[in-house]
Amino acid sequence: MSGLTYRDAGVDITRAEDALSRIRERVARSKRPEVIGGIGGFAGLFRLAETDTVLVATTDGVGTKLELARELDRHEAVGTDLVHHCVNDALSMGAEPLFFLDYFSCSRLDPEVFERVVGAMADACAAHGCALLGGETAEMPGMYQGDAYDLAGFLVGAVARDRLLDPLNASEGDALVGLPSSGLHTNGYSLARAACDRAAARAGSTRADYLAAARPELRGGTLGDALLVPHLSYLAAVRTLRGVARVRSIAHLTGGGWEGNLPRALPAGLGAAVDRSAWSVPPVFALLGEEGGVPQEERWNTWNMGIGLVAVIAADDLHAALRALPDAIAIGRVENAQGTTRVRYV
Amino acid sequence: MSGLTYRDAGVDITRAEDALSRIRERVARSKRPEVIGGIGGFAGLFRLAETDTVLVATTDGVGTKLELARELDRHEAVGTDLVHHCVNDALSMGAEPLFFLDYFSCSRLDPEVFERVVGAMADACAAHGCALLGGETAEMPGMYQGDAYDLAGFLVGAVARDRLLDPLNASEGDALVGLPSSGLHTNGYSLARAACDRAAARAGSTRADYLAAARPELRGGTLGDALLVPHLSYLAAVRTLRGVARVRSIAHLTGGGWEGNLPRALPAGLGAAVDRSAWSVPPVFALLGEEGGVPQEERWNTWNMGIGLVAVIAADDLHAALRALPDAIAIGRVENAQGTTRVRYV
Repeated sequence: MSGLTYRDAGVDITRAEDALSRIRERVARSKRPEVIGGIGGFAGLFRLAETDTVLVATTDGVGTKLELARELDRHEAVGTDLVHHCVNDALSMGAEPLFFLDYFSCSRLDPEVFERVVGAMADACAAHGCALLGGETAEMPGMYQGDAYDLAGFLVGAVARDRLLDPLNASEGDALVGLPSSGLHTNGYSLARAACDRAAARAGSTRADYLAAARPELRGGTLGDALLVPHLSYLAAVRTLRGVARVRSIAHLTGGGWEGNLPRALPAGLGAAVDRSAWSVPPVFALLGEEGGVPQEERWNTWNMGIGLVAVIAADDLHAALRALPDAIAIGRVENAQGTTRVRYV
Repeated sequence: MSGLTYRDAGVDITRAEDALSRIRERVARSKRPEVIGGIGGFAGLFRLAETDTVLVATTDGVGTKLELARELDRHEAVGTDLVHHCVNDALSMGAEPLFFLDYFSCSRLDPEVFERVVGAMADACAAHGCALLGGETAEMPGMYQGDAYDLAGFLVGAVARDRLLDPLNASEGDALVGLPSSGLHTNGYSLARAACDRAAARAGSTRADYLAAARPELRGGTLGDALLVPHLSYLAAVRTLRGVARVRSIAHLTGGGWEGNLPRALPAGLGAAVDRSAWSVPPVFALLGEEGGVPQEERWNTWNMGIGLVAVIAADDLHAALRALPDAIAIGRVENAQGTTRVRYV
């Protein structure tokens, strides 16, 4: 059996890159003087003319984790996921959340499902001191299959200009601090679902039964439960970290895994040496990867593998950081890197 | 044959109201001191702590106009629509656009279609001096049927606090100034499509042929073309209007038509007396309504019927407004209104 890749699962990153390259120039023409930074950050930056405040805006979806949440009737999870995903993206630029808007789209609105999803978003917003400022609920007959729905979230945060995190501030020798994830968070679910299908077929089972089986590798839990744990928010941890360490930049490990995200927190010419023995990859990744036949490289280029966020900090502050955040892990350092691959596993 | 309603077409406004009422309290708990105004405005308002600036944020989709754009291979239209829809919502609170983010979601990304849609958004942003600050492109295998895609747009604008438009400023006797629409804009397409299906079936035709036929009522144009004219932006018109008249509040006539939107620009206890003889309803509405069997009341409660935006202005400034904006129309006045129906046609 050949290895299962993200592309086999129907997601082709190069198509997305092609699509983006086609509009880059026209997007650039919409630029205003207040826009700072370029394309490729975790969030857009807009400096308010009359103040030192920079607005940080980001939009995300939940991807095909939505399908799993529907199959397993766990709609709250994706509401929470969406808010936490956006909060972490804004946080990667150093910003604290101000307000959030949601887009909920379906063929036929089920008020109970809507309540479970958007109610969870409202609760997650409230827990972050972030106002749920508005939303759009779209009922589009015939657009979605059955009771499928889609979600998009939009978050605006703010940061004082001198507190903005900037990849350009990272330099050789800086330390990499990893914060543990709770699982896949909100990315790589098309690959995860394809892996489940493959493993279930090989075991002569259905996906539903495969997801519902108690697994010793998961301490008796089910794969379905492990896949629906909500995305963690790192707001509190990053506040603590910034109190004790000089944080240069932050990478939120989302779609594209390690190689797709860690370099976004580094300037050109620098890369990351990551010591994979510094933490144990949680069993959900090994289980999906092995039973679904996903090659190691594909796993690391798609999933977060147990680390949801990486902060680049001054090496001298590493001990203070690890003392202040007991679950943080020293995972490596910034190094010079030529060539296209910028994450080196040591 | 019984009259065709929006509910028959699969869209039930009461379901949406039920859904919203279920999350209202939890949304309220996410409120921050900077949030001003309540639920029900055209956009959310967030006052920046250290300045007099209020941020105005809104999110919208394009609804099932998307399906029509796909059927007729006119993807640019919906990109433009989305930006203009958001610009007008922010404008209804008195704000000028600052930046926009888009969400594009599909089963399999077609870079050419993406370019046509998002390129049109970028152009529309540039034309409004609005930065296209970010976006999310979601490829979700199996989520959408065939080449269907969904779009959401998020716009943030700003307005000086003393320039904020507030329904509470409207009072009895104020004049209503209507600005012509270019057609249905982005609302009521599920009803329009159902009307087309019904009319085509009655004529023994297919929807495609029905939409592609040259129609004398449309000066030889086709219904397909008339339905895909982009949503107009009223930014320039409202700037002009505010230069010559005291504008109290603005209603953007979107989903829910007249009764669903005009009262949103008025305080409780006030309504609108609208003189429908002041303008000619464009033929596209009569054609869809008559051939599709849509009752008059349903048309006015779903479509804009030829007026895309209504400004409530001081009655003394009416002549100046009409002089400055040659296509603006005096369509009525604000009056006392008890009861649930607040738009009275005279």
